[in-house]
Amino acid sequence: MNMRRTIEQSILKTARSFGYSEIATPTFELAELFIKKSGPEIVEQLYLFRDKGDRELVLRPELTAPAIRFYANDLYKLPKPLKIFYLGDCFRYERPQKGRFREFRQFGAELIGTARPEGIAELINLACSCLSSAGLENFQLRVGDLKILNKILAAWDIFGDDQRRFFTALDKGDSESVRLILEDSGRSPDDVETFFDLIQNKVNSEKFNERKDLLLSKFPELASDLERFEKVVEFLKILKVSNFTIDFGIARGLDYYTGIVFEIDVESLGAEKQVCGGGEYSLNELFNLKELTSSGFAIGFDRVVLAAENEGVVTTKEDLDIFIISLTPPGLQKGMELAGVLRQAGFKVEFDIKGRNMSKNLKFASGKGAKFALFLGNDELEKGSALIRQMTTGEQTEIKFDNVSEYFKEHIV
Amino acid sequence: MNMRRTIEQSILKTARSFGYSEIATPTFELAELFIKKSGPEIVEQLYLFRDKGDRELVLRPELTAPAIRFYANDLYKLPKPLKIFYLGDCFRYERPQKGRFREFRQFGAELIGTARPEGIAELINLACSCLSSAGLENFQLRVGDLKILNKILAAWDIFGDDQRRFFTALDKGDSESVRLILEDSGRSPDDVETFFDLIQNKVNSEKFNERKDLLLSKFPELASDLERFEKVVEFLKILKVSNFTIDFGIARGLDYYTGIVFEIDVESLGAEKQVCGGGEYSLNELFNLKELTSSGFAIGFDRVVLAAENEGVVTTKEDLDIFIISLTPPGLQKGMELAGVLRQAGFKVEFDIKGRNMSKNLKFASGKGAKFALFLGNDELEKGSALIRQMTTGEQTEIKFDNVSEYFKEHIV
Repeated sequence: MNMRRTIEQSILKTARSFGYSEIATPTFELAELFIKKSGPEIVEQLYLFRDKGDRELVLRPELTAPAIRFYANDLYKLPKPLKIFYLGDCFRYERPQKGRFREFRQFGAELIGTARPEGIAELINLACSCLSSAGLENFQLRVGDLKILNKILAAWDIFGDDQRRFFTALDKGDSESVRLILEDSGRSPDDVETFFDLIQNKVNSEKFNERKDLLLSKFPELASDLERFEKVVEFLKILKVSNFTIDFGIARGLDYYTGIVFEIDVESLGAEKQVCGGGEYSLNELFNLKELTSSGFAIGFDRVVLAAENEGVVTTKEDLDIFIISLTPPGLQKGMELAGVLRQAGFKVEFDIKGRNMSKNLKFASGKGAKFALFLGNDELEKGSALIRQMTTGEQTEIKFDNVSEYFKEHIV
Repeated sequence: MNMRRTIEQSILKTARSFGYSEIATPTFELAELFIKKSGPEIVEQLYLFRDKGDRELVLRPELTAPAIRFYANDLYKLPKPLKIFYLGDCFRYERPQKGRFREFRQFGAELIGTARPEGIAELINLACSCLSSAGLENFQLRVGDLKILNKILAAWDIFGDDQRRFFTALDKGDSESVRLILEDSGRSPDDVETFFDLIQNKVNSEKFNERKDLLLSKFPELASDLERFEKVVEFLKILKVSNFTIDFGIARGLDYYTGIVFEIDVESLGAEKQVCGGGEYSLNELFNLKELTSSGFAIGFDRVVLAAENEGVVTTKEDLDIFIISLTPPGLQKGMELAGVLRQAGFKVEFDIKGRNMSKNLKFASGKGAKFALFLGNDELEKGSALIRQMTTGEQTEIKFDNVSEYFKEHIV
């Protein structure tokens, strides 16, 4: 928990530094919210129940729908663009495995009310900064555009079921099916090859220009979309989002995404390597909202913690600073007083509350990782001082009561 | 959320300074855990449901039982005394009102494995320090002892149903019923008066000695218990827990309390004024644990936040530090670069992501409470500097790009 809180604090601080404000929504929602958003198949994964008022409720499986519901109910009055973020537990009835739990914690952000490339670029910047602030160094950002993909599919008369099959295959990484669907469109082998290459092969952001020119020659109707995408790439570079790739093969599996999409992986996590996903979406229909452009992302907090543990960037150990040992009632009294003063000064302090002897107390202090032991024997009390032992070296010093706090400020970082 | 997070951080930091370590348990538990602990009546208040594996689950109504379950499953191996704390959401199907929600947040701590008065005194000290650290100044601690109460009842042959009726009446503040039950015991009117006075009238901790002497003369069998209670009172004073009262009328409503009990009220909260309750308890039977002395408390986090709001000790407003306005593409690029630098330096920064004109941008910045606006016009860019406007005074200064971060470090606290 110590490590989790450290990472949590860093991420929250980062989100605030981007001008995002935190919101919180209830742990359960009406089931229809998620069923309407994601379709009836989602019921499989839901913790569904009826409350005593016979309402069909659900432990929330994700936080975007609740956030937008909150927006539609209350926050719609606030000036746009609205920047919100949240950190909360979600629940899915799935087979648990490493990095995939039935109760898991999600961090997320939503940007509501701007369709400009600056906004989505800043949002992607935020996602990466959150991961960096958590101490992660090795993560891979991929950026794609579902609008461009959908436009090509539309131009090729790939609609409805075919379109769904296409995205399902793409999402699963089933490239054979993807190729077959494209070939079925009756387009020239050359066109099919260009499109297939676009979605199969990621390119470094530096090489986007080549790809753009090729695409423009085949699909001139994409001019404005490609220009917009190029803007986002440019802004990402200005914002110092480094080392990302262009990946038009991102399908995201949810049909409410409408434009730029992105994913972030941490390879060291293995099978469950994706730590972040998001993009531009529309939930306007679901909430009867007028034309509203939104974008957002979610970060799998538990996976970030796992990755941070793997990378060894945060310590899991919560060490005690000072353990106070006093073997007489007057010593105990002085010890309690000192504990109060030292805790106020910000140190982690314990005194013996078990009435144990010296050696058992020392063993306990050592087990708790105490940096110092502070002894209050009768000799010390008479002199108005404490005997302080550095636990690792065994070095001992006598320090006047009035100077104890100062001493630890110098010796404990 | 900004205020809630500030208070949360203060409380967590305080708990750590006392050498307590944070734990977390799942949002749902097997229903039997709470039914066994609190009796079948609790089902009325529970969010109960069956999962797809047909297990009867419940959204946790409180956190002590889960914490002790966690202890019995895993933590029992750790050295004693064990000090743990937690902060999490709980759920009760009750009529919502001010300070009483169906989903509410609870902070709590458990001290496991010591029966010494030092331990419970330090625990009460922790509860008060948590509230102080949240900024509360006006709260009232009351300390009682159910062991002493139960011993007198036993000596008076008030057992079983009578004992239950006694505690129910006491908990409800129904002093007439309390008096009747005591009178039914057949003791002398003088004895009844002494006992009645003990549970009806709180006394200042300074006056405990008088009360102790009176009690000892009537109930000599309480000698060791009163001495222990007196120790706790003495330790509380040494630990600088100020201004508390002795209240033998605390019933706590749960029958697992075995000794010292305490409650903390904030009068300004009105009907739902209790912000903390706890004491020494035993859940050994429930978990098949061998003789284990535990004590703990829970703080109603939402009520603490309400009280802090009432007392005006925390600000609810989350202000932006700097809003960057740049009306040309090169200005936007420079603005993005500066935003990155200033965010890294810890400031809350936004730039225009909506492409608005100057006056609309200024209005938006002002609405977000921005302390400064930073302009990047063509003139400024040429000179390599930014025009900075103090939003409240309207005062403007031109600052070289390289010095912008330094400038804000001086001007924003």
